[in-house]
Order: sequence, then structure tokens, then C-alpha cells
Amino acid sequence: MTTMKPIDLHPDRLFPADPATRELARALYATVADLPIVSPHGHTDPRWYAEDAPFPDPSALLVVPDHYVFRMLYSQGVRLEDLGIPRRDGGPVERDPRRIWRLFASHYHLFRGTPTRMWLDHAFRVVFGMEERLCADSADRYFDRINAALATPAFRPRALFESFNIEVIATTESPLDPLVHHRKIRESGWKGRVVTAYRPDPVVDPEFEGFRDNVQELGALTGENTATWAGYLAAHRHRRAFFKSMGATSTDHGHPTALTCDLAPRDCQRLLDRALAGTITPDEAEQFRGQVLTEMAGMSRDDGLVMQIHPGSFRNHNPQLFADFGRDKGADIPTRTDYVRALRPLLGKHGNARDLTLILFTLDETSYSRELAPLAGHYPILKLGPSWWFHDSPEGMLRFREQATETAGFYNTVGFNDDTRAFLSIPARHDVARRIDCRFLATLVREHRLGEDEAFELAPQLAYHLAKAAYKL
Amino acid sequence: MTTMKPIDLHPDRLFPADPATRELARALYATVADLPIVSPHGHTDPRWYAEDAPFPDPSALLVVPDHYVFRMLYSQGVRLEDLGIPRRDGGPVERDPRRIWRLFASHYHLFRGTPTRMWLDHAFRVVFGMEERLCADSADRYFDRINAALATPAFRPRALFESFNIEVIATTESPLDPLVHHRKIRESGWKGRVVTAYRPDPVVDPEFEGFRDNVQELGALTGENTATWAGYLAAHRHRRAFFKSMGATSTDHGHPTALTCDLAPRDCQRLLDRALAGTITPDEAEQFRGQVLTEMAGMSRDDGLVMQIHPGSFRNHNPQLFADFGRDKGADIPTRTDYVRALRPLLGKHGNARDLTLILFTLDETSYSRELAPLAGHYPILKLGPSWWFHDSPEGMLRFREQATETAGFYNTVGFNDDTRAFLSIPARHDVARRIDCRFLATLVREHRLGEDEAFELAPQLAYHLAKAAYKL
Amino acid sequence: MTTMKPIDLHPDRLFPADPATRELARALYATVADLPIVSPHGHTDPRWYAEDAPFPDPSALLVVPDHYVFRMLYSQGVRLEDLGIPRRDGGPVERDPRRIWRLFASHYHLFRGTPTRMWLDHAFRVVFGMEERLCADSADRYFDRINAALATPAFRPRALFESFNIEVIATTESPLDPLVHHRKIRESGWKGRVVTAYRPDPVVDPEFEGFRDNVQELGALTGENTATWAGYLAAHRHRRAFFKSMGATSTDHGHPTALTCDLAPRDCQRLLDRALAGTITPDEAEQFRGQVLTEMAGMSRDDGLVMQIHPGSFRNHNPQLFADFGRDKGADIPTRTDYVRALRPLLGKHGNARDLTLILFTLDETSYSRELAPLAGHYPILKLGPSWWFHDSPEGMLRFREQATETAGFYNTVGFNDDTRAFLSIPARHDVARRIDCRFLATLVREHRLGEDEAFELAPQLAYHLAKAAYKL
Repeated sequence: MTTMKPIDLHPDRLFPADPATRELARALYATVADLPIVSPHGHTDPRWYAEDAPFPDPSALLVVPDHYVFRMLYSQGVRLEDLGIPRRDGGPVERDPRRIWRLFASHYHLFRGTPTRMWLDHAFRVVFGMEERLCADSADRYFDRINAALATPAFRPRALFESFNIEVIATTESPLDPLVHHRKIRESGWKGRVVTAYRPDPVVDPEFEGFRDNVQELGALTGENTATWAGYLAAHRHRRAFFKSMGATSTDHGHPTALTCDLAPRDCQRLLDRALAGTITPDEAEQFRGQVLTEMAGMSRDDGLVMQIHPGSFRNHNPQLFADFGRDKGADIPTRTDYVRALRPLLGKHGNARDLTLILFTLDETSYSRELAPLAGHYPILKLGPSWWFHDSPEGMLRFREQATETAGFYNTVGFNDDTRAFLSIPARHDVARRIDCRFLATLVREHRLGEDEAFELAPQLAYHLAKAAYKL
Repeated sequence: MTTMKPIDLHPDRLFPADPATRELARALYATVADLPIVSPHGHTDPRWYAEDAPFPDPSALLVVPDHYVFRMLYSQGVRLEDLGIPRRDGGPVERDPRRIWRLFASHYHLFRGTPTRMWLDHAFRVVFGMEERLCADSADRYFDRINAALATPAFRPRALFESFNIEVIATTESPLDPLVHHRKIRESGWKGRVVTAYRPDPVVDPEFEGFRDNVQELGALTGENTATWAGYLAAHRHRRAFFKSMGATSTDHGHPTALTCDLAPRDCQRLLDRALAGTITPDEAEQFRGQVLTEMAGMSRDDGLVMQIHPGSFRNHNPQLFADFGRDKGADIPTRTDYVRALRPLLGKHGNARDLTLILFTLDETSYSRELAPLAGHYPILKLGPSWWFHDSPEGMLRFREQATETAGFYNTVGFNDDTRAFLSIPARHDVARRIDCRFLATLVREHRLGEDEAFELAPQLAYHLAKAAYKL
Repeated sequence: MTTMKPIDLHPDRLFPADPATRELARALYATVADLPIVSPHGHTDPRWYAEDAPFPDPSALLVVPDHYVFRMLYSQGVRLEDLGIPRRDGGPVERDPRRIWRLFASHYHLFRGTPTRMWLDHAFRVVFGMEERLCADSADRYFDRINAALATPAFRPRALFESFNIEVIATTESPLDPLVHHRKIRESGWKGRVVTAYRPDPVVDPEFEGFRDNVQELGALTGENTATWAGYLAAHRHRRAFFKSMGATSTDHGHPTALTCDLAPRDCQRLLDRALAGTITPDEAEQFRGQVLTEMAGMSRDDGLVMQIHPGSFRNHNPQLFADFGRDKGADIPTRTDYVRALRPLLGKHGNARDLTLILFTLDETSYSRELAPLAGHYPILKLGPSWWFHDSPEGMLRFREQATETAGFYNTVGFNDDTRAFLSIPARHDVARRIDCRFLATLVREHRLGEDEAFELAPQLAYHLAKAAYKL
């Protein structure tokens, strides 16, 4: 008989080993552990909250939709078909959730040392009450326990939302989205606060699948002639207003680079023409996206939506995987990203405004100390988003604080974003961020670089207040 | 009644929390804490030492001239006019030093976690004897205390220089500068050693404001025809000799990149012609600057001046701010910087020389382990300057040592440069550097990577001797 | 009389100072300290093992062939001639090994804080039993002791190989190499396992000295017409099969960049024609190398050789040094390296294969978290090589684990490579790697990010098993 391996959800996890620093980190954390979750940027499905239907099974909840999970399995030779990831051609994939779960469980050791492991263990222990570690041997016990739980009312989306202590969560939708789920949530009388965010990539990126049709549809939705530059901009204004009426406080822009432009209207029209005609070159498409960013900044000054730029991902890097399974399957890879030259056109036009907040994210950690902190430590409109995506991890968060704080300070940052579509990981992710921030503050205090009273003042700012203020939530 | 929040100038500040390592760091620091300050590179105003007039008031001393201070305030919505920063158009700005000070004090929390906070606290406590922390409530007490102190003889520039235990300080001047203040200092009989450094950007950078006039003036000063390449070089030689006669031991070059060139004289003349005609392209201007660097290296081999290159700053990034307030207002942003290809022309010509020292700085920390340490660990002429500007901070200094030492060792580095125009921060900056270096050495010893006797030998090298030797001071 | 300074080979060296973490690091290390050495990638000379002749003298063993050693001395003004490095022109260089040794010893302090110092001290203490530290004063005692030892049977290459507990070592040879030493080793009946690796740079890089002759010789060796693209590829297949028959399990590719291409055969022929004619441009040479990488991946899918890419070194950066002393003299400098775009052609063609392992190395640490870990955490064929060359050091290894593990996990890495031609440093290098990995694991456990049982399972994987499995050794 093998001994049970327990899940180690130690109360001191992620705190540094030095006893005096650990003790202070623990004390700081105690003041923020139970603060509500403000989730100003993420990708959960509003349908969950609108319909409040049970999640179907453990694999459908925790494996199939989570590209952090299946990219690691795939990297070690597991076929996506065997994990039940649907093929675009409708070809056969595993449909038995228990078999998928067993396959996942038998590879769980691959996640050692990764944040995915911490998030999953947290959910297993806290949400489902598991005490033994997931492995091939415990796979069925896990499956049965989680499966049974999901059938009960306490594990419906709204109940989980409430038990997670979420004060507000933002989803992200395309301008073409009618926001029916958000409307349904509002009309349902449920108290949970779910807001949308304006993510216009499908009508902003000429290289997005179906761009021309998307822009036409944008015109149809708004009654604007989106074949003209003026009409195209007016259509954005319409939809932004609609999104704002459905709770949006922000827009989000996921471009390949941070390039911004400030072109003459005639040049804008020419680019739009070529984009709609499908004759736009890659360089011109980049200019078009860059021009729209500058326009969006101007619109934000009018309607007050907070602007976010999430640049630097090479999307769909694996052509065969994209052909077989489509986008968001773990094959987006970060690239080197310039901000200093790229943002200058936008900053030259709007950088000194008093009525605009632009939150910058990066997948290129080299920019923290070299570009982002110096920019955010100067321009009034700029704030720094937290460490993001591949860097949303204990080491990544520490690097962000260590590399950005000395130049940008704490008050040019905006707290934590979970940025996830993995609903169950949300409490775990915020918990990791709170622990790491308290660890960082405790280290500063123990090295006499910050007053202890100041650390206690900053901890709830980083955990809660800064995000609420920056995103106007 | 609120309790007074004390300034925490703990004797163990910046040492690591581990007790055994801290104890050794403390012992190492004790051997260097009182060594004289060698400040081989900085931007204090020689007029201060020449005229020895009292500093006017706390704001004029500590807020108005310090772009580290007001860039942070500006980033959080404070207007530069309200801080008394003079506008180029002479438009109205705040003139009441007490109001400026109060505005600064009420935003002092923004500096939490930044080196500016450490430097200021150090000056407040050590120089002015303040015990309570600066905040809105203590602003007037601060103002009154500092203001009163500044009127006394002990707070005149020369007295401070002496109480700071400065052995020698370098300022930086343009070749066009007549160095009257330096002459006056020399003739005054005062014992303080203040030397100049040759910083020729205004006559080297075709994109500098007034370049053509500057080059003409250089000709007038030296009796050389600076419209010819040979005359232009001869004029540099003249002025370098004059600077050397006024104590200079070094030159300094603040280019956008580290590019160097090795062109034929005919091409040099063509570039100079175009630069003087105002028809030079950005690429050609870059070549011109790069060619001058190589020429300067050759001149240094002749006259023995130590050469410094400080590349990688995108100057005046904020066009509106530049239009309203001019240069050096916190809007210079670091950029990605290549050294390997950029320096090759110069290194190919002078890299193996025995009679030249070239000190390299960077604003791009990624180059420490990848480019700078490998280059300095090979080429005889190269040494590494300390972490600089945005990276002149506890975390930045640690990164420098951790990333450069294993390849370049300690003896290819040159101690600390404060590089500041904030006179009061000089003791604090050197103190931070000494503490961090002792911390680094103590960590190596405690992890048995260095002998304890070796650490005690290295500490004064890093704090004092390496700078003196490298800069020939 | 000066006190003897001892070599500090403390049993806890490289472990963190925190007592609890150190204790666990020590316990983990105890389980791997005596595991055999698997050295899957390196540059020791197979002649040593074939002939088993004594090493001539301390300087010829430890100074003259080690570019880590003499690059540091050179950077501080020591002439290579005085270290006995042979000049290409046959000009005079120091020939007295004792004088070379004394010069080296008197500069030994330069290596403080470097891994070279740790490797040498380890060899001095463990292999030669020295107790005092090397310095000018102890130089002769060192020389005499080592010199005497080298004359004894226990210090012959095979005896050292065995006493180092090397299970298997790979050397690297050109396709043109007849592998006579490997054959001789096999036929000698000696039990030591020495295998070759296929390193085709001299026939793959059109900018390599003698490329055209090399390709002709490749044709002559294989009976293929290497002037045709098909014949050139066939010749590679021949030689790969021969190398495999002599024990090779891998190929290795040391290109300036990681660029790969997927061109039409007609374009390949055109590039080959121009390469052989000596009319190829730098861009085309880059394409040619990139195309060969993709071809090599395809061949590896056929013959099972594991593929390694070691990109990013600017070779022979110092033209005068290259002219005087030739290649591999410490003048290769790392450069910024892109993987995301560069590898896409190869990955698009072979990235999802089940029958290929491609191990990526880097000299650009910024790519760990941004590019390499995300790529290896997705593509089935990719694994990450350990921190390499300038980054094969305590801090470099820690950065690799801290920056790569959270995205790639442990199982997409391949243990340690010593990559050295310095035979005596091999045990020391593996020891450093084992200590740092145990330190990293201990830190994760003490911060409750990994189970203690898991750390004990991972330690031997990182020290031994992963390398054996990944390289099929």
C-alpha cells in the first residue's frame, strides 16, 4: 500500500524561508486574504452566469478548455484528440470524460514547479475538498468526487461566484457581440456583478479571420457606413456606448505589437479600403491596427473607458495545430516587444491627458525596467498591468515587482488581473498574487527599505483598491 | 493625535534578512562606510563650488532641479507648473517655495519602494537631522528646518562637500564651456577637488539643438576651421587639452546608441558637410556620431583621457513636455541597445590597445550577461560602469553584480558613479552602493563562493579604489 | 610569514544561507552527489582517451587550452604570447610551462566570483589534493605537485575518466573527421564509453574557412556529388550513418542565429551553387544554414539522432586576435537571439513529430521566459538545454530554473551539459549543476511550492536520468 501524498496547501506557502520575513508576510497577508476579488480583466463565459447551468463534468470544466493544461500535456506527447479537444473537421476525439481525466491525472507530475499545479491544487483542495494529490492512482476518486459535486447547487456558476467572494468580474466581448448574456444577468435580479469589456480585435485587425465580413456586420449593427473611415470610427463609438451601457468600464486590445500611428484621415481611408479589399500588406495591416489604437485613446478621452493594450503574442504559431484545432490551443508564443518607439505616436497625441488611463501589459519581461516602468513613471495616462499570461506566476510576479517598482513605484500599477477563462482558478490566482505581493512588501520592510506601517497600507491597495480605482469598478 | 512616523535609517538597511549573511555584510560595510567619496562622473554645477553661495530654499534645492522627483509626481497628475518648473515661454508657474514643498510632501508616499525615497530620507535625516517622515502633516516643519539650515555656513556648498567627505568630484561640461567656475575654484585656494569631464555631445550630435552654431563656435574658440574634418578633429584635440589642464581625466559620450564607425576621411568630410548644411539624414547623423566615437578613442590613446560611453536613452520622448519645459525633465526613456555589432568598428581599431580605458554603461540590463560582461571579460580596453540612471537602485545594483560578475569578474568593473545633479543625494547614493556591494560579497562568502578574506579585500576596492584607478583620479 | 589561505570546498557550498533550506538542499544533494556523470555534449579530445598518454604539464593542461582562463587574463592586460598561446605566424611565444603557470597564478584573484574559479579550485583540491589557495606565492608548489602527479598512471586520461565516474561522454566532430580515435577506443577493449556527435558546421556554413574544399571532401568521402543539392544531402546521410555506427546519438549545430528555412529544392540548389562559387551573400549564407537545419531535422526523424541547436554566438569578434591566434580564443560574444520567428519554418514542418527530439540552447537569457519555455511547453519535439557557456554558472543556472520552469516544467529540460574542452573541470561543473538544482528544489519545497517527496524524485532526474533519456545514452 502506498502512503497517500497530501496536497500541500500550507498556510505559509509562497512566503520566503527566512523566519522574520515570513512572519511579517503572514501578518500582511492576513489583512488581505479575505478581501473580495476584483477581477477587472478576464475571459470567463458570461453564459455561465446568465444560465447558471451545472458544469458538465471534471474534464469539461478543468481540462478541455484550459490551454495551460493541455499545452503541457501536448508538449510531452499526449495527443489533443485523446484529451477531447474538438477537431475542426469534426474528426473523432475522445468523448469519455473519465478517460480524459485519467490521462490528465497520469501526467500530473509534468506540472511540478508550474503555477498551473498551484492553481489546480488550490481548487482541488478548497473547492472540492480533496486531500490526496492527483495522480494515476487517485484519478477515479477525483473524478467521482468532482463529478458528484458539480451536480449540486453549490457548484453552479453563480454559487461558485459568490463563494469565491467575487465583487465584480469583467468578461471580454467583440463589438459584434449582442451581449445577450450580460443583459440576461442584469435582468435576472441576481446580485453578482458581471461587466463586459470592449475587445475589438475582430474588426480592428485586418488579418483576423473574416475581417471584411466583421466590419460589414459592424456597419449593419450600428447603421454606419463602415466602408468610410468616418463611418468606421462612428460605428466604434456606437458600440462602445452600448458596451458602456452594459457595464463596460474598459476596452482591451490584443495586438501583435504595441505600434501606434497618427496618420492623416486620407491615409486611414486608404488603409481601410485595402483592408476591406483584402489587398492590405502585413506592414499596412500593422499600421491600420496602430492607427486604431490612437483613435481608441481619443474615444476613451470622450467616453471614459479605460484602455488596455496586451501586445506581443505571436498567435497561432503552430500551423498544423491551427488547421486541426483552431485558435487558443496553447500555440501562442510571446515575442520581443518594443514600447518606446511604438507608443510614441499615441503618447505624443494623448500622453499628457488628464482624462485617460492606458494600462500596458507585456509578455516581454525585459521591458519592465527598461521601458515600461520609465514610461509609466513619467506619462500621466500610463499605468502598468500586472505580470501577464506566461508570467502570471510566483517568479514572474516577483520579477515584475523587483524590476518595475523602483522606477514606477506602486501607485502606477493596478493590482492583479487573473485574465483567465479557467473559472475555478480565479481564487487561486488572486491568492498567489496577494501572497507574492505581501512577500515582496515584507522583504522591503525587513531590509528597512519601507516602513512596516506603509506595508500594511500598501497590501490592501495591491490586493483590491488599486484595481478598483484604475478600472473605475 | 497621530503618532509620529519615524524615518527608518536602520544601520542594517539593505542587508539581507538571513542573520549570518547580514552579520557579515555589516562587518564588511563597517570597513568601507567612512571611506572618502570618489565621484568620477556626475552633473553637479561647478558654480556652486566656485561661488559657495547658500542654496536658496528647500524646493529650489530638492524638488525643482531633480527630474527623478518631479517625473514621479507628474506621472500621477501633478502639473509641472505647480512644482515651479520654469516654462520655456515664461508662462506663469508657482513661485512660492513653501507651496511647492507642500505639494511635494503631500505626494511623498508615491516614492515608496523607490531609491529616490531612500536618498531623500537619508539627506533629511543625516544632513538636516529630521526624525519624522515627510508627509503633508510634517511638510511645514520640514520646510522651516531645512530653510533655516540653508542660511547657515555649514550648509554652503563647500561645507557640505567637506562634510560629505568627498575626495574628488567630476562635473561634465561642453567643449564650448570656458570652465570659468573650475578656474575660479582652482584659484580660490579651497582644498576641495572638483574636476571637469569632456562631454562633447553639443558639437558631436548633428541632431543636437544648435549643432551648426556650436561647431562654428568650437572653431572660433580653437582657431581651427571646423568646417573641414581635419580642422574639426584638431579643434577637439585643442579643447581636450584645455579640459585636461583644468583637471579632466575623462570624456563622456551620451549617444542614442553605441554605434561606432571607422570611415574613410572623405566620407567623414561628406557627413560633416551635410551635418553643417542641415541636410543630414537620421542614419547619417548616427554614422557621424559613431565615427566621432572612434576618433575620440584614438585621441584618448594620445592624451590619456579615460573614455565613457553612456548610450541608449531616447531623449525628449514627450514632445509637448519638451516644447513647454525643454530637456532633462524626466522624459528620457531607455531603449534596447546593442553593443556587440555596434562597438565592433571601434574595437577592431583600438580594442587591443594597452593605452586606453573605455568604460561602458547601459540602460538595457539585458546586455549585462549577454554582451557587456563577455566583451569586458575579453577586450583589454573595456571596463564596465556601474548600474546607471534608472538602474542606480538596490535591485538594479544587485542585478548588475549577479549578471556581470561571473563573466567579467570584479576587476573589470570600476566602482560606483553617482551621476547626479542632486548634490544632497551623493552621500546616500554612495552609501546604497557600498551596502549593496557588501551584501553581494557577504552572500558569496556565506554560500562558500568566495573567501571571507577576499571579501574584505574586495569591499574597499568596490567602494573606493577601483574608481580612483580606472578614472586616474 | 603569511598564513596559508585555504581552498574553501565547503560541503554546503552553493546552498542558500537560510538554515532550513540549506539542510534540505544538503539532503537532496546527498542523493545525487555520487551518481555517475552523463556528459552528452562536450569538446574533450578523443585522442586523449584513444592514446591515454600523460598530459604534458600543468600549463598545457589547465591554461593554454582554456579560453575561459586566458580571456580573463587578456582582458586585464596579459599578452597571449606570454601565456604560451601559439601564434598563427609561428612567432615567438612563451614555452616555459613554469613561467606560464606563475603568470597565471599571479593573476588568479581576477577570477574571484567567477565559475572558473570554482571549477579550478575543485580540480586543485579534489584531483590534486592542494589545500592552499593558488596565488603568486604558492605557484611553484602547485606547479611541482601537479607536474609530478601528471607523470603517474592515476592521472592518465583513462584513469581520470574512471575516477571522475563518467558513465558516458560525447565529443563533437566534423563530418570530415575519420573518427580514428573513436575507432581506436572501441577496439582497445577499454570499458570507458566515449561517443561522437555530428557537428557539421564546416560543411554547412558557407562562411566557414575552407567551406568549398570541405564540401568537396565530403563528396569524396561519401562518393556523392556534393555539388548537387540531392548529392549534398545524401552525403550528410552517409556520414550521419557512419557517426551513428561510432556511437553518435546526436547532432549539433552552432549557427550565428536560430534561423530555419523551408525552401524549394531549386532554391536550395541555387544557394549551394553560390556557396560553392564563393559568391553567396551574407543573407543567402544565413538562408543556406537555415535550410540545412530543417533538412537535418528531417534526417533525424529517419535516423533517430537527437538534434541540438546552439545559436547566438558572434564568432571571432576581435579581428586582430583572430588574425594572430585563430578561432576559439575567447573572442566569441553572445548576441540577441530570436527563436519565435526563426524556428517557425522548421517547426511548421516537423514541430508536431513524435519521432524527433530537438534540444535548444541559448546565449540570450531573455529568451528563457519569453520564447524558449513557451515553445518547449508546447511543441512535442522541443526540449530545453541547460544554461550554456557564459551562463553555465551558479547565477546563470538559477536564472534558467527560475525563468524556464514555470512555463516549461522540469520534464521539458534535459539535465546538464558541461560543454567543455577542459577535462579537469568536468566533475566540478556537474557538481555545481547538481548543487544548484538541489538548491532550487529545496527552495520550492520550503516555500511549499513542491512536495518534499517530489523534490527527492526530481533531483536524480535533473542530475542523471533526464540527460540519459533525452540523448538516448
